[in-house]
Amino acid sequence: MTVPVRFDHDRAARVGLPEAVLCEGKTDEQLRAVVSALRERPPAPALFTRMAGDQRVVVEHAAGCELDFDTDSGTAFLHGRQPARSGCVAVVTAGTSDLGVAREAVRTLEFLGINGTCIADVGVAGLWRLEARLDAIRTADVVIVVAGMDGALASVVGGLVSAPVIGVPTSTGYGVARDGETALHTMLCSCAQGVLVANIDNGFGAACAAARILAIAP
Amino acid sequence: MTVPVRFDHDRAARVGLPEAVLCEGKTDEQLRAVVSALRERPPAPALFTRMAGDQRVVVEHAAGCELDFDTDSGTAFLHGRQPARSGCVAVVTAGTSDLGVAREAVRTLEFLGINGTCIADVGVAGLWRLEARLDAIRTADVVIVVAGMDGALASVVGGLVSAPVIGVPTSTGYGVARDGETALHTMLCSCAQGVLVANIDNGFGAACAAARILAIAP
Amino acid sequence: MTVPVRFDHDRAARVGLPEAVLCEGKTDEQLRAVVSALRERPPAPALFTRMAGDQRVVVEHAAGCELDFDTDSGTAFLHGRQPARSGCVAVVTAGTSDLGVAREAVRTLEFLGINGTCIADVGVAGLWRLEARLDAIRTADVVIVVAGMDGALASVVGGLVSAPVIGVPTSTGYGVARDGETALHTMLCSCAQGVLVANIDNGFGAACAAARILAIAP
Amino acid sequence: MTVPVRFDHDRAARVGLPEAVLCEGKTDEQLRAVVSALRERPPAPALFTRMAGDQRVVVEHAAGCELDFDTDSGTAFLHGRQPARSGCVAVVTAGTSDLGVAREAVRTLEFLGINGTCIADVGVAGLWRLEARLDAIRTADVVIVVAGMDGALASVVGGLVSAPVIGVPTSTGYGVARDGETALHTMLCSCAQGVLVANIDNGFGAACAAARILAIAP
Amino acid sequence: MTVPVRFDHDRAARVGLPEAVLCEGKTDEQLRAVVSALRERPPAPALFTRMAGDQRVVVEHAAGCELDFDTDSGTAFLHGRQPARSGCVAVVTAGTSDLGVAREAVRTLEFLGINGTCIADVGVAGLWRLEARLDAIRTADVVIVVAGMDGALASVVGGLVSAPVIGVPTSTGYGVARDGETALHTMLCSCAQGVLVANIDNGFGAACAAARILAIAP
Amino acid sequence: MTVPVRFDHDRAARVGLPEAVLCEGKTDEQLRAVVSALRERPPAPALFTRMAGDQRVVVEHAAGCELDFDTDSGTAFLHGRQPARSGCVAVVTAGTSDLGVAREAVRTLEFLGINGTCIADVGVAGLWRLEARLDAIRTADVVIVVAGMDGALASVVGGLVSAPVIGVPTSTGYGVARDGETALHTMLCSCAQGVLVANIDNGFGAACAAARILAIAP
Amino acid sequence: MTVPVRFDHDRAARVGLPEAVLCEGKTDEQLRAVVSALRERPPAPALFTRMAGDQRVVVEHAAGCELDFDTDSGTAFLHGRQPARSGCVAVVTAGTSDLGVAREAVRTLEFLGINGTCIADVGVAGLWRLEARLDAIRTADVVIVVAGMDGALASVVGGLVSAPVIGVPTSTGYGVARDGETALHTMLCSCAQGVLVANIDNGFGAACAAARILAIAP
Amino acid sequence: MTVPVRFDHDRAARVGLPEAVLCEGKTDEQLRAVVSALRERPPAPALFTRMAGDQRVVVEHAAGCELDFDTDSGTAFLHGRQPARSGCVAVVTAGTSDLGVAREAVRTLEFLGINGTCIADVGVAGLWRLEARLDAIRTADVVIVVAGMDGALASVVGGLVSAPVIGVPTSTGYGVARDGETALHTMLCSCAQGVLVANIDNGFGAACAAARILAIAP
Repeated sequence: MTVPVRFDHDRAARVGLPEAVLCEGKTDEQLRAVVSALRERPPAPALFTRMAGDQRVVVEHAAGCELDFDTDSGTAFLHGRQPARSGCVAVVTAGTSDLGVAREAVRTLEFLGINGTCIADVGVAGLWRLEARLDAIRTADVVIVVAGMDGALASVVGGLVSAPVIGVPTSTGYGVARDGETALHTMLCSCAQGVLVANIDNGFGAACAAARILAIAP
Repeated sequence: MTVPVRFDHDRAARVGLPEAVLCEGKTDEQLRAVVSALRERPPAPALFTRMAGDQRVVVEHAAGCELDFDTDSGTAFLHGRQPARSGCVAVVTAGTSDLGVAREAVRTLEFLGINGTCIADVGVAGLWRLEARLDAIRTADVVIVVAGMDGALASVVGGLVSAPVIGVPTSTGYGVARDGETALHTMLCSCAQGVLVANIDNGFGAACAAARILAIAP
Repeated sequence: MTVPVRFDHDRAARVGLPEAVLCEGKTDEQLRAVVSALRERPPAPALFTRMAGDQRVVVEHAAGCELDFDTDSGTAFLHGRQPARSGCVAVVTAGTSDLGVAREAVRTLEFLGINGTCIADVGVAGLWRLEARLDAIRTADVVIVVAGMDGALASVVGGLVSAPVIGVPTSTGYGVARDGETALHTMLCSCAQGVLVANIDNGFGAACAAARILAIAP
Repeated sequence: MTVPVRFDHDRAARVGLPEAVLCEGKTDEQLRAVVSALRERPPAPALFTRMAGDQRVVVEHAAGCELDFDTDSGTAFLHGRQPARSGCVAVVTAGTSDLGVAREAVRTLEFLGINGTCIADVGVAGLWRLEARLDAIRTADVVIVVAGMDGALASVVGGLVSAPVIGVPTSTGYGVARDGETALHTMLCSCAQGVLVANIDNGFGAACAAARILAIAP
Repeated sequence: MTVPVRFDHDRAARVGLPEAVLCEGKTDEQLRAVVSALRERPPAPALFTRMAGDQRVVVEHAAGCELDFDTDSGTAFLHGRQPARSGCVAVVTAGTSDLGVAREAVRTLEFLGINGTCIADVGVAGLWRLEARLDAIRTADVVIVVAGMDGALASVVGGLVSAPVIGVPTSTGYGVARDGETALHTMLCSCAQGVLVANIDNGFGAACAAARILAIAP
Repeated sequence: MTVPVRFDHDRAARVGLPEAVLCEGKTDEQLRAVVSALRERPPAPALFTRMAGDQRVVVEHAAGCELDFDTDSGTAFLHGRQPARSGCVAVVTAGTSDLGVAREAVRTLEFLGINGTCIADVGVAGLWRLEARLDAIRTADVVIVVAGMDGALASVVGGLVSAPVIGVPTSTGYGVARDGETALHTMLCSCAQGVLVANIDNGFGAACAAARILAIAP
Repeated sequence: MTVPVRFDHDRAARVGLPEAVLCEGKTDEQLRAVVSALRERPPAPALFTRMAGDQRVVVEHAAGCELDFDTDSGTAFLHGRQPARSGCVAVVTAGTSDLGVAREAVRTLEFLGINGTCIADVGVAGLWRLEARLDAIRTADVVIVVAGMDGALASVVGGLVSAPVIGVPTSTGYGVARDGETALHTMLCSCAQGVLVANIDNGFGAACAAARILAIAP
Repeated sequence: MTVPVRFDHDRAARVGLPEAVLCEGKTDEQLRAVVSALRERPPAPALFTRMAGDQRVVVEHAAGCELDFDTDSGTAFLHGRQPARSGCVAVVTAGTSDLGVAREAVRTLEFLGINGTCIADVGVAGLWRLEARLDAIRTADVVIVVAGMDGALASVVGGLVSAPVIGVPTSTGYGVARDGETALHTMLCSCAQGVLVANIDNGFGAACAAARILAIAP
């Protein structure tokens, strides 16, 4: 069976974001078909997310060139990244276990030409850690809060800054953490006004949303 | 028992949004205590949400003045609204049943001094209706999509515009609509990149998020 | 049908807590049978919880005396309360809507002879409110945190005090607040160490747990 | 223990569909017993679904002949397929990850003697892709829509064609995609009228339903 | 606030089904706006579903004429019904409590000009009742099975007839019947091949699907 | 619309249990149709369950005679009850709130001619109450345990008696009691061997099961 | 750490069932401790359930003798089985995938000295298969119905026999089969009167319940 | 990418509990970063939980010294433990499968300098086992009840002792045990007054809570 692939090539023009390839759940054959479809066009920056180590080998072989690959986040850039844009995004995390998702957000921002900074390990059980970094967080145009377990960091940050706040629940923890569902619900119920939420573990989506937001400032 | 009320009066300075009073679930006595706490300060615009008809009477009596009350959305303004800001927001709805929540968003925007337009009844089962309004939607700086049932409108709009898209699932429908949970999950899983989501029926929160976003444009 | 009632009269001796009567879901006939069973013994303090206004009338009539009734919490004392014990408990709430449950905790403490103080409206979206009351909270031997919606207050308080912290999620809010399930899960997943949790809206149970805890100090 | 197998051999006469063997969850011994029961009858086309690579070896050995096996869908035909029928079915997919399930539908149609065409990668985030293929889709007698994540494609297609539309949610995606539950609920709540739904990942069932439908046209 | 209404008037041409008005959850003002939008066009048959008794009065007043109203199903026809089509549909129910939903299906078929027959009370706990009506069921071109509680009737019917089978789970029963979710899941998991399913209580949608199916026979 | 009713009159012969009429969710018209169908046969004992006060009036009027009605359980007997059978059943309850369901079981047993005894208020928080009644419980041929909240009584009783134990979870309690789901799951997970479970609040079903069990003793 | 084991040795006397050892989830060290505790007493028949192949080796080594082990069900007998009892049990299954659980029931019956017969592959999609075996099923004193997916077999069998019917839902199937939850709920909602249910995949528990039931016949 | 780690070093001073490192879900690189951050300070006792065997090797290598490691619970102490405190805690378990979690509680107590005793295998299906150990349990200042499946032990113990009772549900069992959710809900719904609950499998958190409680006794 030939794998049919139909790229949404004019997406960048329409929504300002290039199409990205989610590798998870794709067979090697499907990945090869995707790369082959990409090669029908002039080389342009392409982003791959949730890429496993052996998928990298498959894609590099099919593309005939090396990827800019990051193990922690499973992200890869083919043919470089997009031109730099203005604006800056703070990616704030509650604990060490949230770093993989935070890194996916930072790498996606990087791919989109946006300056992203990771401010890690400022969970609310030790508020002074957050307070110590508050000035840094307040300089950002957009704040992405990455947190699992109780997800309480989104509410606290949302009450401290005036910038847009995007919560990304993570699937860390055990028991009633329920693979991120508890953090998701907590963030959606945030008592801080105007906190928005992306899917569980979706650092990529949060970065895309930040890009949409930054694009409205002239 | 005296109802203790502690307002977060400096919130406006800190996060750029005034505190609002959620009336649902509050007793008349609690509402009176809230108004009484507001009266300890010089009059300033205050927003009430999810206010029932009889709660309006209680609050007007306690405040000693009339409210700017809207039945459809259950919102009320005390002492006017905030000064006008630049930027405009399109509030797009799938069906007639989503209008109450859409109206909560529009009224909150109005209270915050933001220009909000409602573009109704453009559900995806009749795509031409959406296409007919696409130019209007594309002029907005931020798009709020209000939809229940299948919630598919957020994905379609997210693929057609480059502005920030905020999904607000509504609790309309029956059976597996599950009081908005299906629309919520659909929007969080949107195949359009960078769609963000607010709590079910939370038109107020979506408007606050839009205000945060518009504030980053100088 | 005669309603059979079998009281656990030696419970006080065994676990240090008198039996209490949950009124919710009981028919008038059942309440009358309960009071009649109580009257077979010498008068002793008895606690009723979740009592509706008309149930009060039924019980007062059956008991042949007045109750010490509190509308806000639906609690009632028959034949006074237990002797005073040492120790003090802070009942901390996130918002005004949590006051009914907080009041059930305070009233139960009162019935058990324990000094309970309500510290209200210190939700994490405005941290300074919590900080302003922190000294008062730190003087308590046990802290009960009553919060709905995101339930984040339990984690923040748990990171700030060394006393035992008991979370009571409340069924306030709408959408994914899910009648308190989100706050419950948040509290169980608290990133603060050693936070324990009672059932949703169970101010009574939290107060009983506090009584068990205070009893271990000589 | 001997594995008892009781085939529903007259099913084809009764409901117009031959019995099929779901391989997933069956032990090798059970598969051998199934083949052995088949061999008690004259050779007739038999379909196996969700067959793993090593199960193929077991069955081929037991049957004493080769299977027409398809790796992508895990389907296998023993003793050929059924005679060709008139009518044609379009199997439309949202993304590359849905291809395995779509292929199960196409292969089952093929086994049943029905002409099935796969129209892939027409997800609603890039509507022009769907519009480009709409004429092809409209020529089909029955349309099967295979989609995971937000499942929105079923609603959009349902609003564009007059043929029967069968939604097959897939277990692709992560987080609140919930192994296909979100796409399932979205499709059941479709705002397009008369969209019907099969179990998650059940390409086989959708094809059988299409066969039932095509059988009513003389 | 003026209620904006945008009808999908060409739907009939596009998908062969007229738009219908779901009354549940609509305010009187919204219903009046809907009727007013209908009156901007030449009179054509319109269907209202889930209409309450007082909503009927509102609509009749706004329309200036009487409705063909059916209390059991809450359906109403304005300006008659669509021309008769060939084909016939059997609507089979498990128990008396499923009759309201079955009636919604029958009435919708009637509105669409299709011949629908209700075969009631043939639940699987007394199989002979089903067997006694099997010949009648087998004459139908499409079979709609309406059942709550265990929903087992869909599987049994699906194994006995060759026609397309559409399951409609109902929200009857208590406890783990879970407002129809159990019957829904049972039907989706049916061991009979090719059974399709509509949303809980969605007799209207099942009838629309039957209409789509009947339209493919010339 | 005439309500079609098809009784399973030979059920008693087939499974040893007469058909019973669940009144909940039935309209008055449907109840009248049921009684009318009953009247087509010679008078025989019939059982109605979950009957509300006004439904009783409807049925009595349609039947032209009085019912043996019990308010606590909502059960009614028409034309007496079945002949007495040997064997006895203990219906054990945890708390006063479980009495309604327990009573439904006792009344159904009574209707079936079986001797049933209610042993109430022996919840596990005060084990001595259970121990005091253990001899009485051990004389029963079958034990039905009716309990809500934690449902722990089924496990404790199951470990103390050798008779068949049938758990009936009740929808009492609040918060995570979840309308009986917690008690249901607890009973299904019982650490006592061979405890079986009926649907939530299904005292009727438990009594029917007890009748099936008693019938195997000659 | 020494593994503490406390056997409930008098259980057989108390409830008529010997203690059984659930191997799943136990470490090798824990299994050795269990066998060692068994060896402190005179040899008596002991049952192990859910035993994996390598656990068998561990236990045989610790026990110093061979087990009567059955791979299909993961059951093992140490020191033989209990004396034969009168009565017979039919274990009826819907499909081949249910055989492992059915076998656990049959083996447990065997261990308890009870005559159990497996009647396999009589799922309701092909009713004639069930009808062909109905006489055999009707001779049984107790019927255990083992079924996954739609679980409809329990309702159909419950309507055809007068013996006690015990449903055992199995975790077979995919999608909304939800690891047996759908079959569980279907069986609990059975429209056949007096069907009781055991935990998902709990063939052991169903057999123990059958033993309790058979014990009441003198 | 350098892993950023920000320790909450003054936590011990603030809440009386040292920070602990949850190893589960951390990469080797993250663990090395954690140890490296610890080494920036003078050696102090540190606790690691849910540590796998190979993680131990990584940490020992990074720390340059041996850990006090316990396989059963996956806990490790670096640089010894905290000074002894007064008070004693009973850790009571229902079955052998709960021992891992119980051991995590005992080891955490040990690390915190608290005397903890494990009283195992006293599940409620054989009450005499619990009664035999009741005196030992009653000498404890705090009781931790570790139980999976039906979780009924917490209610029974809560009704027998006056000390604070902390329930820890475990993820043992299968089917509706639902990875500990059933035991969690049972414990939260306990009919015994004042039972508090920790997250599923959270022996560590229960021990920390016990430490908070013991700290209030002078």
